[in-house]
Amino acid sequence: MTRRKDLIDIKSLDISEIECLLEYAASFKEILSRPVKKVPTLRGRSVATLFFEPSTRTRTSFEHAAKIMSADTYSLNASASSVTKGESLKDTMYTLDSMGIDAFVIRHPQSGAAELASRYVPNKPVINAGDGSHAHPTQGLLDALTIRDNKGKIEGLTVTIVGDILHSRVARSNIWTLSKLGANVRIVGPATLLPPDAKQLPVEVFTDLDKALEGADVVNVLRIQLERMTVGYFPTIREYSRLFGVSKKRLENAKPDVTVLHPGPMNRGVEIASDLADDKNFSVITDQVANGVAIRMAALFWLMGA
Amino acid sequence: MTRRKDLIDIKSLDISEIECLLEYAASFKEILSRPVKKVPTLRGRSVATLFFEPSTRTRTSFEHAAKIMSADTYSLNASASSVTKGESLKDTMYTLDSMGIDAFVIRHPQSGAAELASRYVPNKPVINAGDGSHAHPTQGLLDALTIRDNKGKIEGLTVTIVGDILHSRVARSNIWTLSKLGANVRIVGPATLLPPDAKQLPVEVFTDLDKALEGADVVNVLRIQLERMTVGYFPTIREYSRLFGVSKKRLENAKPDVTVLHPGPMNRGVEIASDLADDKNFSVITDQVANGVAIRMAALFWLMGA
Amino acid sequence: MTRRKDLIDIKSLDISEIECLLEYAASFKEILSRPVKKVPTLRGRSVATLFFEPSTRTRTSFEHAAKIMSADTYSLNASASSVTKGESLKDTMYTLDSMGIDAFVIRHPQSGAAELASRYVPNKPVINAGDGSHAHPTQGLLDALTIRDNKGKIEGLTVTIVGDILHSRVARSNIWTLSKLGANVRIVGPATLLPPDAKQLPVEVFTDLDKALEGADVVNVLRIQLERMTVGYFPTIREYSRLFGVSKKRLENAKPDVTVLHPGPMNRGVEIASDLADDKNFSVITDQVANGVAIRMAALFWLMGA
Repeated sequence: MTRRKDLIDIKSLDISEIECLLEYAASFKEILSRPVKKVPTLRGRSVATLFFEPSTRTRTSFEHAAKIMSADTYSLNASASSVTKGESLKDTMYTLDSMGIDAFVIRHPQSGAAELASRYVPNKPVINAGDGSHAHPTQGLLDALTIRDNKGKIEGLTVTIVGDILHSRVARSNIWTLSKLGANVRIVGPATLLPPDAKQLPVEVFTDLDKALEGADVVNVLRIQLERMTVGYFPTIREYSRLFGVSKKRLENAKPDVTVLHPGPMNRGVEIASDLADDKNFSVITDQVANGVAIRMAALFWLMGA
Repeated sequence: MTRRKDLIDIKSLDISEIECLLEYAASFKEILSRPVKKVPTLRGRSVATLFFEPSTRTRTSFEHAAKIMSADTYSLNASASSVTKGESLKDTMYTLDSMGIDAFVIRHPQSGAAELASRYVPNKPVINAGDGSHAHPTQGLLDALTIRDNKGKIEGLTVTIVGDILHSRVARSNIWTLSKLGANVRIVGPATLLPPDAKQLPVEVFTDLDKALEGADVVNVLRIQLERMTVGYFPTIREYSRLFGVSKKRLENAKPDVTVLHPGPMNRGVEIASDLADDKNFSVITDQVANGVAIRMAALFWLMGA
Repeated sequence: MTRRKDLIDIKSLDISEIECLLEYAASFKEILSRPVKKVPTLRGRSVATLFFEPSTRTRTSFEHAAKIMSADTYSLNASASSVTKGESLKDTMYTLDSMGIDAFVIRHPQSGAAELASRYVPNKPVINAGDGSHAHPTQGLLDALTIRDNKGKIEGLTVTIVGDILHSRVARSNIWTLSKLGANVRIVGPATLLPPDAKQLPVEVFTDLDKALEGADVVNVLRIQLERMTVGYFPTIREYSRLFGVSKKRLENAKPDVTVLHPGPMNRGVEIASDLADDKNFSVITDQVANGVAIRMAALFWLMGA
């Protein structure tokens, strides 16, 4: 297996690479369970998180992963940075590269931005922490790890992804990760929020939630971005919630031991019922967060490790 | 003494607990006097500061305390965080807990928020860094430590707290700390800024500053929040300053060796005369800041130490 | 050589001090080339960066320099700090000093602010990271280091500084550093953007770019602050670019091996042609950034080292 420079999306990874990342993460979980969570793996190395969209949870997860491995972290966000003075992504990357920063974690509202950033730092790793509606590979991996932890396998499972598939990099990274690992992936949402290229994706497409949930082993409930409503993708929150909100009642057609994921932050009572989110018989949402740190350690180690 | 999970307010602490925290802080002051201020006490542990109200000085004080003890720190503030995407305090706490953050320092404009946050992380310590007008326990403790350092004792001292008592968590935490340690506490301010429940507090209430200062050993001058003026609590800054501003002249009725505290940031020339603030014969304001770091080290050690 | 407390500007430094800083920086460059960039020089020491103007690149450069030497760093910016509550610079400095912060890096829109801040912390070093149009000494030093690295010397070189000299602390710090080290310094820009005191500076003054570039060994292209345009210093960006924009064509009168600097962030296509900025035969802009970290390590070591 050739060594990769970056982690931009899951689509371009081999199955063996996905499995390698999951194995690394599984082994890093042991470190996270220690009272003293500190290993010297990346001591004297530096990681910059460049967030052109705010996301405290994802940024903190990456920084925690880096600090546990003893790396120094630098947090740059768009509003405070030279970007407000009109500096291009190119010059931002050139500058941080020249300063001697060793790796970059980038979130950006434009699809393709992480890959573009990567070209400006030809000798340094870039991890995509979400670019537009394109990809969010560590989310895809942490969801896969969480499913595998709970089901013992991924192959052969039926996984239903519910919500705004059209705009969702989480959906896209889930689809590629899970289908490569042998799951049967279904997507379901309002017709206006299904991607026009759905037929090119390794998924079954539904517009009826009850049918999409029939026999499902896993349900991944996407966050509804309430700001979409104002631009006409769906009529009202109430309407969305009635048709596509996932609740215990709604899960009756799924497998009895169905597992529920949500990438967070949740709109409780909109896309997911609050009691379902908190019911540990179904919900593995807090496991996803914990696995996120392990996956980000794995990604940093995979790209920066010796 | 049973071990506490959290430090939410002073009112619920035993005297022995307050004294234990003051002793820890006194011993940590030696570390702060070293050229190399670093001990391994909390190595591999992590502390998140969640500030839903801005306060660089308090946040920096906590982060410095944590870093001196070798903890990693994560700074989250409301404007940049998922809170702007509508995430609840509950889900924010669940998320940070799941990531493996070991302790939480919270400032919030709503009274009770720290206690609420604590319930969502049943196995992790929460330190209240100020919640609404309720409590700011480390401020109460650092003021007590500063008074004890300067007077040799707290028992039997007369301490006058001046200003906006109604909205002040600093006043409330001072009242409980100092009265439990045996001081006679007086409060004074415009009638509109005295709390309606003043009679339930262990204090003497005044509306005349000169009478309240008579024989005082210590004066704690509260910050006036200028934004209160617009909502009618007092007519003008000039009027407030004339009636309740503390100056050397005004201190003539106090004990000759009266000690002056202010929690900062100061409005010089409003609640406190600028020359008084800088006169080391009276003012111990910089001691308060230094003791703040020691008290926060003590609080972190008390809750996180082995 | 007496030991300095602060690094406020270059004008007040002796030549031997400038050379000492350049030597330190040259030796620190070796550390920057290591895979593990971490030395224990400033372990247990703390550095606060106080930025009253945003500048991610300069702040990150200082923080990286400090962290490589194992110092802890605290980042305070004006919008989030007590400054928004009206705290004076004096009280901000008193507070951070009392907390035990060991050194201060300050950027401020007012000329003289760093020197003023220094007076409030009489026992602690202050590094000026840019104050109004006065000085930006580490920029002057990093430019000198970059020129010396590329030309082998500074003495006798002709250096042309192009742009808004009037408002530029970069220009001022370059003029003093380079003239003290024996360079012939020229300044050129629109007449409205040349300083009225130009005759007191050790420079030749030009208003015609082609004449100013004749025989130049080095060209330092200043950033145009586009917001100046609205207040009438120059008519349009296009006009500025046509008269004072530096391109390969424009460099024909300069020495064939002319070296081009820019302090960043660049307005590509305005003050500098994009292809020139990226042409490693001329441009040393990324070297400047790398040297910036070494110079900031040198400055911290010079003021804080044992």
